[in-house]
Amino acid sequence: MTFERVRGFRDHYPEDMMPRKKIFKVAEESAESLGFKKVDFPSLEYLDLYRLKSGEELVGQTFSFVDKGGREVTMIPEATPSVVRMITARKDLIKPIRWYSLPKIFRYEEPQAGRYREHYQFNADIFGADSPEADAEIIGLAGMILDGLGLQSRYEIRISSRPLLESILNSVGCRNVPAAFGVIDRFRKIDRDEFFSEISATGIDGEHTDLLYSMISRTVEPGKIHDVTGGFANPSVEAEISRLQYISDLVARMILSPVKVDLSIVRGLAYYTGVVFEAYDVMGKHRAILGGGRYDGLAALMSDQDIPAVGFGMGDAVIELLMKEEGKWFYSNEKPLFYVCCTRQESKSYAFSVSREVRDGGGATIDDLSNRGLSAQLRNAAGERCDYAVIVGEREERSRTATFRNLVSGEQREIEYGKIGQHVLTLKGVSVKKA
Amino acid sequence: MTFERVRGFRDHYPEDMMPRKKIFKVAEESAESLGFKKVDFPSLEYLDLYRLKSGEELVGQTFSFVDKGGREVTMIPEATPSVVRMITARKDLIKPIRWYSLPKIFRYEEPQAGRYREHYQFNADIFGADSPEADAEIIGLAGMILDGLGLQSRYEIRISSRPLLESILNSVGCRNVPAAFGVIDRFRKIDRDEFFSEISATGIDGEHTDLLYSMISRTVEPGKIHDVTGGFANPSVEAEISRLQYISDLVARMILSPVKVDLSIVRGLAYYTGVVFEAYDVMGKHRAILGGGRYDGLAALMSDQDIPAVGFGMGDAVIELLMKEEGKWFYSNEKPLFYVCCTRQESKSYAFSVSREVRDGGGATIDDLSNRGLSAQLRNAAGERCDYAVIVGEREERSRTATFRNLVSGEQREIEYGKIGQHVLTLKGVSVKKA
Repeated sequence: MTFERVRGFRDHYPEDMMPRKKIFKVAEESAESLGFKKVDFPSLEYLDLYRLKSGEELVGQTFSFVDKGGREVTMIPEATPSVVRMITARKDLIKPIRWYSLPKIFRYEEPQAGRYREHYQFNADIFGADSPEADAEIIGLAGMILDGLGLQSRYEIRISSRPLLESILNSVGCRNVPAAFGVIDRFRKIDRDEFFSEISATGIDGEHTDLLYSMISRTVEPGKIHDVTGGFANPSVEAEISRLQYISDLVARMILSPVKVDLSIVRGLAYYTGVVFEAYDVMGKHRAILGGGRYDGLAALMSDQDIPAVGFGMGDAVIELLMKEEGKWFYSNEKPLFYVCCTRQESKSYAFSVSREVRDGGGATIDDLSNRGLSAQLRNAAGERCDYAVIVGEREERSRTATFRNLVSGEQREIEYGKIGQHVLTLKGVSVKKA
Repeated sequence: MTFERVRGFRDHYPEDMMPRKKIFKVAEESAESLGFKKVDFPSLEYLDLYRLKSGEELVGQTFSFVDKGGREVTMIPEATPSVVRMITARKDLIKPIRWYSLPKIFRYEEPQAGRYREHYQFNADIFGADSPEADAEIIGLAGMILDGLGLQSRYEIRISSRPLLESILNSVGCRNVPAAFGVIDRFRKIDRDEFFSEISATGIDGEHTDLLYSMISRTVEPGKIHDVTGGFANPSVEAEISRLQYISDLVARMILSPVKVDLSIVRGLAYYTGVVFEAYDVMGKHRAILGGGRYDGLAALMSDQDIPAVGFGMGDAVIELLMKEEGKWFYSNEKPLFYVCCTRQESKSYAFSVSREVRDGGGATIDDLSNRGLSAQLRNAAGERCDYAVIVGEREERSRTATFRNLVSGEQREIEYGKIGQHVLTLKGVSVKKA
């Protein structure tokens, strides 16, 4: 008999969970270094919460069911609706509000590389600020996390602007901006002919369709944005370009990697109203690492309050692929690790006291549970990649000492009980530990 | 229009989530200091996983449904079956294995104080070691976490032993040990007469029923266990008492609070086979803070492998009540917090660079997004309980400096750009921050 896990879901063994924990730690510390605070919300929400914002397509991809009270509930397919529900439920909160969260979210989609039916998603949002500085702070936080993971040579941030695109589309006779966004969103998935025929159907003439095509085909430095928007100059376009350039300049002051303008980014058909952005692997191998943007209309859609908002979400799956490719999918113990060997049963109690002193001195301990001979215990110590062995036997117990052995150099020293914590404080981790 | 959350589920605003995060951090660091590694598993499992071990009572309390593939699945009602599934799925793992996890678990029960339909549960287990030292390590870890939270004067660990109780019950003619365990488990919920009539029904005579009643009514020091077991002396009882006393001695070497023997603890009708334990508020106000024990039979029940195991689980709800009563439900920023004021729009870019230098020096920054006057910005800084304000305006930008103001002492200093990180390194948090 074997029990299997549900398809598309993952077990996280330590060799994967410990590096994943490191990602979360970097993300949380980066957010807190910008004054963000953590929130959390139920893993189960009423399905209605998603109907307004996300439409029936998303609803069809949920793990939803009718609860024992007869109402339609769902395992949460995204974080934002819950966070906005929390924000609008408390009118006493002083804005701007900087919140982050790290829920698991659930989608009933076909599993594939970098996509699971359950994944962790780090989210950060600023509510109650509509300034470009708030936009920059969110985009900058996204970059700071990737920098903090040592990926600065591996990613770039690509930003775009829905109002800029909208101004451009309006200026060339587009009669259906949402439809045009939909076509642009599928730009990299359809061929040139399809693009031309679909975008023309929104009312844009042939000449401007060409200009539009070449504009969204290129990724440019923010300072060179006119190279691609030149065909569409008008005052409202210029105002949006200035905002985008200003945001880019601010972001560049926060992070190590380049910020590029990529006007093909519209972030689906969802609820964005301002800047939109994604982070990409510069090797172009994966789907977006993360993405987000400004969504000023959502709170008003869900409540009687009008609250500007900007935020992003980052799943744990694509970043894992990237970290693995970069050889960064490992972890190090935060504390030096001591294997406490005990060479006779009667000294076990004393060994427990020695262990405690090691921990009091800031070490981590693994107490031998094998009760085998010393050489077997030392092999276990090596297998656990310990930095030191602490040996306790009859002699040590009698003399109230413990023998410390550096497992890399072999150097050995006897330390008096009562001075062990002090001794441990002087030691550092000596071996490299990887998973 | 308002969206509500599902009944029995919680929103965690920062004032609750940040202290909760502190609990998790202490728990995880305590576990890692004993060589435990983190694992995780799906929030959704096939319902069959729980049928064997937990029976239909638990299954009736699950959030379960039929998935789109037609199989019965459930939001996980506990952690152990998933962990055992993971352990038995990988025969290459070197034992003993020390794992911890921190999932959300889900029960469709009536919500009440300290009990929700969704809660976090910290779990730690050792697999592949059947020694009393492994028992002690698990119980000691539970105590170390409570010590680490500053609750050492507030809790006690109460331990018991199923084989000890079983030896006693067998020695007095009990014909149905599981039924007797069930009666003992309900000991504090039923009155004396009910207890006597129910326990007699398992075959125990009147005299021994009296002895049993007085034995499980008292909590004693491990050294005085014979005060309560004296009426049942026999060799197998003595062997189990010795093991329990030895475990207690080892645990006492790991933690700050007392270990007591409480033979009324049997931990429900579940799968425990050895030591069982719970931690209680010494004021007697709450349900158990945490609980666990040895469960050597579960792996064999779920697979073809026989793997001894001992572990415990701790929910986040009772510990929250306790921390609140103790005035410990707050959090402090880990880094000194700087509010970066900017007195004119044109200097915002420079202010972003100043902020970054503050963060590079180890500070956390909150950039002003209000664009109001300096005094309003300083009020925001106080509202965010910042330690320092950093003021940037025309003068500072021209002279490439920033003005640092200690928000407690009012002391002010101008620091050159390029030396800000260095300056921040010399500063500590100065204000006390509580939620």
